This record gives sequence, structure tokens and C-alpha cells, in this order.
Amino acid sequence: MRSVLLLLCGFVSITAQSQLQGFSKASAATQQALEKKFDEQLKSSNVEEYLKQMSSRPHHLGSPGSKAVAEYIADKFKSWGYQTTIETYYVLFPTPKTRLLEMTAPKKFTASLKEPALKEDATSGQVNEQLPVYNAWSADGDVAGDLVFVNYGVPSDYEQLEKLGIDVKGKIVIAKYGRSWRGIKPKVAQEHGAIGCIIYSDPKDDGYYQGDVYPKGPFRNEYGAQRGSVQDMPVYPGDPLTPNIGATKDARRLDRKDATNLLKIPVLPISYADAKPLLESLEGPVAPEGWRGALPFTYHVGPGKTKVHLQLSFDWKIVPCYDVIAKITGSEFPDQWVMRGNHHDAWVNGAGDPLSGQSAMMEEARAIGELVKTGWKPKRTIVYGAWDGEEPSLLGSTEWVEDHANELKQKVVLYINSDGNERGFVGVEGSQGLENFFNEITGDVIDPQTGVTVRERSVANSIADASSAKAKKELMDKKMVTMGAMGSGSDYSPFIQHLGIPSLNIGYGGEGDGGEYHSVYDSYDMYRRFKDPGFVYGVVQAKTTGRVTLRMADAELLPFDFRTVAKKIAGYAKELMETTNDMRDATVIENKVLSEKYYTLAADPTKTYVAPKPKDEVPYLNFAPLENAVNLLEKAAAALSSKLDNSSLTEDQKNKINIQLYQAEQNLLLPDGLPRRGWYKHSIYAPGFYTGYGVKTLPGIREAIEQRNWKEAQDMVEQTAAAINKFSSYLDTIK
Amino acid sequence: MRSVLLLLCGFVSITAQSQLQGFSKASAATQQALEKKFDEQLKSSNVEEYLKQMSSRPHHLGSPGSKAVAEYIADKFKSWGYQTTIETYYVLFPTPKTRLLEMTAPKKFTASLKEPALKEDATSGQVNEQLPVYNAWSADGDVAGDLVFVNYGVPSDYEQLEKLGIDVKGKIVIAKYGRSWRGIKPKVAQEHGAIGCIIYSDPKDDGYYQGDVYPKGPFRNEYGAQRGSVQDMPVYPGDPLTPNIGATKDARRLDRKDATNLLKIPVLPISYADAKPLLESLEGPVAPEGWRGALPFTYHVGPGKTKVHLQLSFDWKIVPCYDVIAKITGSEFPDQWVMRGNHHDAWVNGAGDPLSGQSAMMEEARAIGELVKTGWKPKRTIVYGAWDGEEPSLLGSTEWVEDHANELKQKVVLYINSDGNERGFVGVEGSQGLENFFNEITGDVIDPQTGVTVRERSVANSIADASSAKAKKELMDKKMVTMGAMGSGSDYSPFIQHLGIPSLNIGYGGEGDGGEYHSVYDSYDMYRRFKDPGFVYGVVQAKTTGRVTLRMADAELLPFDFRTVAKKIAGYAKELMETTNDMRDATVIENKVLSEKYYTLAADPTKTYVAPKPKDEVPYLNFAPLENAVNLLEKAAAALSSKLDNSSLTEDQKNKINIQLYQAEQNLLLPDGLPRRGWYKHSIYAPGFYTGYGVKTLPGIREAIEQRNWKEAQDMVEQTAAAINKFSSYLDTIK
Repeated sequence: MRSVLLLLCGFVSITAQSQLQGFSKASAATQQALEKKFDEQLKSSNVEEYLKQMSSRPHHLGSPGSKAVAEYIADKFKSWGYQTTIETYYVLFPTPKTRLLEMTAPKKFTASLKEPALKEDATSGQVNEQLPVYNAWSADGDVAGDLVFVNYGVPSDYEQLEKLGIDVKGKIVIAKYGRSWRGIKPKVAQEHGAIGCIIYSDPKDDGYYQGDVYPKGPFRNEYGAQRGSVQDMPVYPGDPLTPNIGATKDARRLDRKDATNLLKIPVLPISYADAKPLLESLEGPVAPEGWRGALPFTYHVGPGKTKVHLQLSFDWKIVPCYDVIAKITGSEFPDQWVMRGNHHDAWVNGAGDPLSGQSAMMEEARAIGELVKTGWKPKRTIVYGAWDGEEPSLLGSTEWVEDHANELKQKVVLYINSDGNERGFVGVEGSQGLENFFNEITGDVIDPQTGVTVRERSVANSIADASSAKAKKELMDKKMVTMGAMGSGSDYSPFIQHLGIPSLNIGYGGEGDGGEYHSVYDSYDMYRRFKDPGFVYGVVQAKTTGRVTLRMADAELLPFDFRTVAKKIAGYAKELMETTNDMRDATVIENKVLSEKYYTLAADPTKTYVAPKPKDEVPYLNFAPLENAVNLLEKAAAALSSKLDNSSLTEDQKNKINIQLYQAEQNLLLPDGLPRRGWYKHSIYAPGFYTGYGVKTLPGIREAIEQRNWKEAQDMVEQTAAAINKFSSYLDTIK
Repeated sequence: MRSVLLLLCGFVSITAQSQLQGFSKASAATQQALEKKFDEQLKSSNVEEYLKQMSSRPHHLGSPGSKAVAEYIADKFKSWGYQTTIETYYVLFPTPKTRLLEMTAPKKFTASLKEPALKEDATSGQVNEQLPVYNAWSADGDVAGDLVFVNYGVPSDYEQLEKLGIDVKGKIVIAKYGRSWRGIKPKVAQEHGAIGCIIYSDPKDDGYYQGDVYPKGPFRNEYGAQRGSVQDMPVYPGDPLTPNIGATKDARRLDRKDATNLLKIPVLPISYADAKPLLESLEGPVAPEGWRGALPFTYHVGPGKTKVHLQLSFDWKIVPCYDVIAKITGSEFPDQWVMRGNHHDAWVNGAGDPLSGQSAMMEEARAIGELVKTGWKPKRTIVYGAWDGEEPSLLGSTEWVEDHANELKQKVVLYINSDGNERGFVGVEGSQGLENFFNEITGDVIDPQTGVTVRERSVANSIADASSAKAKKELMDKKMVTMGAMGSGSDYSPFIQHLGIPSLNIGYGGEGDGGEYHSVYDSYDMYRRFKDPGFVYGVVQAKTTGRVTLRMADAELLPFDFRTVAKKIAGYAKELMETTNDMRDATVIENKVLSEKYYTLAADPTKTYVAPKPKDEVPYLNFAPLENAVNLLEKAAAALSSKLDNSSLTEDQKNKINIQLYQAEQNLLLPDGLPRRGWYKHSIYAPGFYTGYGVKTLPGIREAIEQRNWKEAQDMVEQTAAAINKFSSYLDTIK
């Protein structure tokens, strides 16, 4: 295993190297020759063809289009030499029967809830097969009442509303898309007593404020609306009726009312054309500055004379969910699986989301199939998963992972996820032990627009974006693509967060901005004009993820470096302790500001202002177990690295060690999972309970502190420290 | 003189004190009794009456309305027992003859340049006497060309344009109001080769984004436009033809072409209704995020097919400028003047700007007149100045100050300025030696809305606004109204910056936000609804400024505390040295980012990106002369305070010392003034050459550093240090 130091010598040394992480000098040359042949296979015209074909009709979960896409993918994999099956699950999936949103006072207005067909977009008029604009997992409901604007609808917005003396109890709220995953908005609204929730795309965040709108430019036009799931996935994803188990035909199912990740209130997403009359009619206080969007009037919070009526009902059907699983069995280690995955279902035509990633993955798979045809075989088994039902709630991946949990924990070396892909910069998140490995790979792939490595370009982008000179300097010194921590939002979630299987999520982006997300305009016509003209980044993605797949499949010693894991966990712990200290100081000061009535004195007496209640003070928590655990982990990781750097390891030793390496991360799981959401078992990463996709590191401790639950915070310090200690002890035993 | 420590004990000790800064215990009681009688005189109905009367017709410089207002004020002062004169100057003042703005391509549009009459606003239809929407001191011009959007039109915006590969040479620019004083925008446009400049009020900064628009609410409606001066006042204010001397009838005048503070290009302000078609038609790159406003389309930078034609011509007349000067001669020190001032001219009806301040000042003067009628006389002479021609370029005050410079330097103890006033929090800026004194006063005035002192309310507001817990804590510990540093923007400028006469600028605000500024809607109808209903803050302002006037007029020992001056200068110096160090580090890093081409690599290759040139490195400057000067000043100020705290000073000693105290600040002047703008002589404060109203502290050094003129920076360190040393030596001689 190469040391970190080598990686810090700059781009040149990386690209000029003759050795690869995990490979001996001799086998590295073979591997590089293989990758050269792999690259030569990749054709952008194929990526385009798959994408065009699969996006030619709507193909959401349960639709004829979805079945057709699954079969198309399966046929392709078969034709490329893969052992291919379609594994079918049977999952709950609500689709709309009634959708009505109207303003009944002060004047009458009925929302169109329609995205018009455009002559510039060939598939936008496929109305018969399109899922209309809706939020999956909204409750059925027929509610009427006052309307209140709640900004992004996150908890801090309700604190602001309380200060304004505004209560949403018994009212319908309207929230902007953005700042949190969408499912958080109705969940928090429901917690505050709202009876219905409307979510709209404000042109400031997602429309003309960002750029020219479709079809002139790529941004969301006034009628575009964002479909999407509002299942409470931070509790558990997948089929609400079969938590923790695969939704096979005869699985034991919960009664729907007992599913703890379903909402009780109706929710509907709308366009800004539909939102405009509602918002414009609101009275009450002028919205706080940070709440205002780009519609051309003064935003008010409400309530007032504005009354709305929201009526929604759904067909709560069990539908088939088609996962395509395709394998090439490994020549030496058939029971060690390097797994690639990307979903295939879309909200509508889904050219960008998910077909851009799916098509790149298919071209990668085809090229590997071609290599196999030349006589080469991977040492480890390569498995491709094309998932169905990701959009509603990661259904295909979650049910498959739950169904095959024991086998996967034994066999999966790494799960490599992708999803939408577009022109721009490589980004990665996942298991930190592979940060160095991934940087090596990105140093071997050339960016087609600039001719430098994709790593150099991604680093350049971080430097250009960094807000301070200090941050720029650090990035220039480091010269590495930073591996982000994993929250949720795609199919890696069950692998890493439920089972502790090492995972990466890889994709290109940053130069394909637009507003097609989850609308009928996420089409082939849109994609080829604005997201990846020429489909060159489809090929670059295949080169990148293909290298990860190939190197993991053939490595003599798997390139996990747990020193990076230790360093990152140490960083999270330090930051969390500092945050707690800052919170303690801030609470004392804030309580003093309140007890001295400064906010009340500063408030405009002609307006309502309700001072918040003082908060309980932040006690000193005993972080020592965490600090000791981090300290031990740093030592264990360093000792293991020294052991592995010893080049006298025999092949047998390496083979034994490899299994221990890829199964190591499972030791970081919490036996009981996170409080109140035991499906999430990883002690280091989870999607936030109140942020959704956004990651929370050391989530058990961090969320308890954020919720000011000091007893639980202390308990989670101990549980998390125990998990880290178990991981360290495990590393100590590797040999 | 009281020590700072006493002031830090909290609000209670201040209000309960029986001694006043500058007064013995016995005389303090007399003074407090006097102030009680003063307060009893003040009537909000009078403030309303003055304001209503004076705002009943347009009264800009040179208009019949202005003459009538001057005579009204003079008559009032006479009736209150003041020796009153109208001093007339003869000043250049351009008014529009031709105003034409049209878009000629891609389609035809002619700007209305009109603010319509509203039935809710009685004076808004006085078209015959209204000055139309224009920028005074625009050049005559008839230009046509491509249009480019330049954001706020400040220097950093042009750096951004260069990166986008866009040049304004030979083009017409359109800039948003805001971020800088308006005169900076055409000046910087002209420096970059633009041939014309349009300035508009974007609804994001000044319109519906901020709140409901007039007449429903107070914010700028789509037709409202902001008149205003674009003279290059940072070079020198006042009559462009008579720099440094009073514009008396027979003063020696420059030829207009030789005036260095006049523009060469035409400039016109427009409403957002008029700006909308122009901006919407622009092509070219999408405007950077920070540039975008609240109009409902995608902002582009231009140029493109959009062509505009701007034709402006003016009547460059010499007009009379009527300053009303009213005096009550002091009983003991007739040649020591405590001077109050507020302008009386407006752009149109000017209810808020300036009549709210003028009316409060008049009520203050009437109440003092009433006290005189009871037999009391101030020890020092009290002088009121109601200035004409402030709006075009501080004409009335500047010409009067230049005309009477020698007398004023001998006699003026303090100049106390006010201008527009509205509901809210007390604010102050000016000579820092009076910070403690002013805090004492604000601890004696009660806020009518909350019942606490105006000081406590202003402190509460700063605490509520502070962004960090740390900042809140500091403000809670300090419990003081911070005296801001003086830039420009009202009539104090010639007093403090040209002559070094101690000055304060005092006013209430923060709860009267609106968009009437320099429009026809700055009217009585608007003011009484939105700015100060009941005119109670007019009375509070009179109580505050009246106390400053009365205490300065009667103090036995003038309450200047130069330890505060020393502390503030030390703070400015420290901050400036830190800024220079940060700039040095940032330059090195930024140059490395450039030499490694990171910005170019990060840029989207499908768009134009021109990397900036590396900047010269920041040398180490010798700040020692400044540091030594600050050190000496701290000692001199402390020694003087000890001397003055000695209560055994005789009355004669005090009388001698007082003159030395109020003339002290003149020692801080630079003999030659600031480079390239010698009219500005203060070494510590000046309006920024590229910010306008905004203050630059230690301006000679700071602006040289900002402009990377290292030689001048070093020279100005020495000149500034010399001024501070002269000031310290002067303080040492006080006895």
C-alpha cells in the first residue's frame, strides 16, 4: 500500500507513477495495459444511444416503461456476456387519483398542476404515460384553511414564525423547495400541526433568477414542477410495509397505518406559475429578508384572507419492482464481489436522472464484457445492479440489500454507486479509507475539455470556489479531491448505512446546471443540449468508475487506508466538541440577551414580536470515551498500515487480509442503530433526521446535541466510542 | 471631567447620577432643571406644522419654493428671539432642459422618466414646480451605443467584467443604485471609457422586494426614481467654480471646464419600470449571482443587440443659495459658538429629507428661545444654520464655511448636524472625544415607544443585530451607543473635514424604512403615515440634540475626552496594519492560484473567462512612525485627562482650557490635505474616493494601500503620524 506522502508530491508524480495502489510493480503494468484497452472500447455514441432509447417514454416504478427499460438493460447485459437476472420485489407505491389545489378566497384560482408540452422537447407531450406532478407518499386528504408561507419549511423557519406570533396549527403551509430534502418540509409542518403542505419551486432557487429558462436555456420555466418522494426516509427507506426485510412476494407486510415513515397530511408540489397567485395574495408580516424569492411582489408570511383547498387521493397499489442484476464471476475470488449500481427508474423520462449515470454504467459494463471476450477475467466477481424504484424511496436497492443482507456482508468488497451525470468536475463521497485510492484513479483520467487530469480540474474548482485565501492555500497544498461524507439520496444508503459495506458515490457535475430535475423536461432533447453535449462526460464517468471497478476487482492487496478514516473521524470529533463548546457559550449569551429583554426592546413596537424562551444551558459532556477511541483508532490504523507496507507479505497472507479489510467497516455499526431509527446502523454517517439527504457525521451524538437531549448525547458518546473501539480492535487482529 | 469607568456601570448609574460631564455638582442640578423646562416646551404638533408647511410645495435650490422656505425659517427664528440673517451665495446649479432615454434596438422603447401623481399623496402632482428625475452635475451629452449592465458600478464590478471579457469602452452602462454613493458609478464608468451612465433603483434593493410599495406601503413603486448629485464630491464639495472660497457675488470663479469635480459623461437615474425593458433585452453572459436583482427575468450582462440613446442637456445657471443663520449671543463667551445645522432644500417636497430634521431643529430652537424669554441665557453663543443647496453638493454649508473659515476655526466649539429623522434608534457619528458625553445624554432621554432610555434602546438594537454571540456579549458589556466615524453625505463635511472643527451628526432611524428617498413621494402624506406617525421622534430628536446644544453651551469644562480619540485611532491603525498583512498573504496566494492556472482550469470552457493579471506583491511598510504616534497620543490623552480630573482647577483655568480643547482637533489636519484632493484635510476621516459617503479612516494611508501605491502609502504614514504627533504635542500644552 502506498503511503499518503507520495500523494502529496503533486500531480505529475501521480500520473507518472509506474505502481498502482494494491498492485505489485509487475501487475501494475498489466493493469494499466488493461485499462488502456478498456478506454479504447468506450464510445460516446453508445452512451447516447442507451440514453435516447431508455428516455424515449416515461418509465417510473410500476409503469410499462419501467418494465421495458429493465428488460432493455437485461438484454444488453446478456448480450455483453453477463449472467443476468431480473429480481422482482413487490412494493407499495402510491400514484395520484385526485389532485386539486384551489384558492377560494380572497379570489378564486385553481392551480393548473400541468407542465405543458413544448415543440422543442419531443417527449414532453407524452401525457398518457406521464406521472403527473405529485409527491409520492403524501397522505390522502381533503383539507381547507388559511395559508401560511414557511420559507424552506425547516425547523429554524418555525422558530422565526413563533417570533412573529404566527402558528400553523390547523393551517395549510406553503414552503419553497431547497435547503433541506423535500420530505423534511411536510414532516416538520405536520409536527407543528399543519393540516396540509404545498411545496413550490421559487424562481430564485430554481428558475429565471438562476438563468434562462427552458426551452431557451436549461432552467426551470414557470410551469415546471418538481415531483419527488416525501417518505420519511431518515427513519427508514424502501418499502414502508417491509422494513429490514426484502419485499418478496410473500414477505410479511405491515399494515400501512403502522408504517412509521409515512406522513399523515397531504402534500403537493407546484410550479411558480401556480404558486404566484397564492403568495401574492398573502397578508400578514412582510417575510424576513432571507425568506424572499424572485417573484415580482412583496412576499408576506400570512395568514390573512387567503384560503386554500387541497384535495389529494392516491391509488395505494403493490407494484412489481424490477432490479437487473448482472455478473461476471471472478476467476480467483468468485465470492468477493465488486459491485456497481445505478437506478433505472425515473419520475418521467429521466434522461439526466438516472439515465445519464445508467448509460455510462452500461458502456462501462459493455467495455468490461469486451475485455472478457479477449480472454481476460477479473479476479473478483463484478456485479452490476440496475435498480428500480429509487425515486420513490430507494426501493429496488433497499429491498435487494435487505433480502440478501447476509450474503452481501460476506461478499461485497465495495459498492460503487452512480446516478445523474453531467459536464463538469468529478465528485466523490463515501468510505474514507479509499480517498487516496480514488485520487490515484482521478490522476489517470483526462478531462476532455481541458486536457488536464480530472483530479487537477476538480482541485482547481475547489480552489476557485474557496472563499478565503487560507482555504485556497490549504487546497493547493493538499492537491486532492476530497472524499465527502455520505448522507443519503441514492442507492448506496442500504449498503453503507444499513450494512456497513464500503461504498463510493461517483459522478461528474457543476457545468450542467438546470431546472429539469424531476420534471417532464428531463428529456433527451434537454440533456443533449445542456447537460453533456456530445456525451463525452458519460465516457469520462465510465473511465473513472470502470477503473475503480477494475482495480478493486484485480488488486492483490485491497487499497483501503484506514489512517484516512482515523483522521477524518478525529476531525469530526474535534469539530463536534468545538460546536458543543460554542453552543454552551452562545446559550449563556443568548439567555442573557433574553433575560435583559434586548430583543424585545429592539423590536418594532408596531409589529408583533414574541421573544423566544431561554434555552437550558449546555452541560459539559464527557467526551473522553470518544477522544480515547479516536486516539486508539489512530494508533491501530497506523500499525495496520505499517504491517501492510511490509512487502514481504505472501499471496496467501494478502488473500486472507483482503477479506478482513473489506469487512472492517461493518465493525463501525451500532448494534441497535440510531435512536428512533434503528435501520440506520453506521456510527459515523447518516442522513440528518431534520435535513434529509444532508449528512450528519457522528450522527447519534450530533443529533442528540442539536436536539439538546444531553442524556442521549452522553449515551451516544459511549455507544459511538464502543463502535470505534470495536473497529480498532478488529484492525489490530488483521494479519 | 468624568472618567470612562463610571460610564461602564450600566444604565441605572447613568440615569441616576447627579453630576453631568462638564458641570460641577451644583451647576449640574441647575442644568437638569433647565433641560426639564426645555423638554416641557417641545410639542409634536409644532414639528408637524413646520414640516407640513415647508413641504407643501417643491423647494429645491434656486426655486421660488426654496426662497419661501428660507424666509419661513428666518421669520420663525426671528419670532423666537434670534438675531437672524439670510446669507446668500451665488452658486452654479444645472437643471435639465432635455432628458431622453430610448432603446433603439432590438425594439423601440422610450423611458417615461416620470413619477405619476397619486391620489393618496396630495403634493405628488405639483408637476409645474417639481424638478424632474435627473442627476445633478451630469454632463451635457447626446450618446448612443451598446448597453452593458455593470451591477453597482463600483471598481470590483469592473474587475468581474474583465474576467467575463467585457469592455465598456464606447458603451453606455446601466448600474444599480446602492453599495456606493451614486456619484461613484458614473465616475468609475467614465474611468473605464463608458460614454454614458444610467442608474436605476432595482426592486431588490429599493422596491417591492423590501416591502409593500407606495402608496400601499412605504417602499419605492415601479415609477419612483432617485434624483441626486453626481458631482465628484470626494474631490471637493460645494460650488465647483469656487473651491476653497465662499461663492460670494464677486468671488473669483473657475471656468466650468476647469472644475475638477465635474463629470464628462451624461448620467440619468431611472425607475425600475423604465429599466425593465432595457435589462430584459440584454444578452451576453448571465449576470453573476450577486449582480441579480428582483425583476422577474434572467439578468444578463450584455452587450448584444440592445442599443440605447441617451440625450441630456442642462441649464448651467448661477442661482442664489439662501443660508439662514440665527444666533443667541452667549452671556459669558459670546465668541464661543455652539452651532446646530440642518439643510432646508429638497429635491422635491422633501418631507423626510430634510424637513423632518429641520422641523425638529426648529422646535428645539423655539424651546431654547422660550427659555431665553424666561431670563436664562446660554453662556456660549448658540448659532443655528439652515442650509440651502445641500442636495446638489453641500453648497450652502460649504460656501458659508469657506467664506467664514477663519472665524469658525476660532469660535466654533462644536458643530451639531442633523438631516432626515424618523422612528427608531438614535445614531451618532463624529468627533470621538464626545462619545462618553453623548452616551450620558442618551441616558437622559426616554424612548416614547418603549419607556426605556434612547441609549438602552439603541444598544438593544445593536445587540439584536449583531451576527455573533461574541459580538453580542461585547455590546452587552459595553452598553454604549457607538459613535461612528464620519464619512460624508451631509453638511458636517466642511466643518470637520475641511476645518477640523469638532462635529456630530445625530438622528433617529431604523423603523421608518421606505423608498421615498429623493422622489416626489417624499411628502407630508407619506411621512406622517410611515416615517414618524404622531411626529414623536421629531420631539425625541429635539430633546437629544437640544441637550447636546445646551450642555455644550453651558459646560464649565467642555466634555472632550481625548482618551477615546486615542483608543479609536489605535484601533484604526491596528486594523489597517492587519489588513495590509492579510493583503500581503492573500496576494501571494492569489498570484500562485493564477500562475498555476487554477481559475482557468476551473472555468467553464464554453464561456469566456479572462484570468486577471497577477498583482505586485505587498511590501512591508514602515508603520513605526504611526505606531509611535499612537503610543504618544495615548499617553498625552491620559495625562490631559488626569490634569482635567483635578477638581482644583479655577474658573479662569477652565475658561482658558476650554478654548484649547475645542480647537484641538484642528491639529489633526494634514497641511496639504489628502493627495489629489487637498480640500479634505483631516488625517483621520474622509469620505472614500471610491465609496463616496462611506468613511475611510486614516484615509491617506488606507487609500494608498487599497490602490497599491506603496510609495504614497509610506509617505502618508509619515504625514499622518506627523499630524497625530502635532495633536499630541498640542494636548501636552493644554493647561
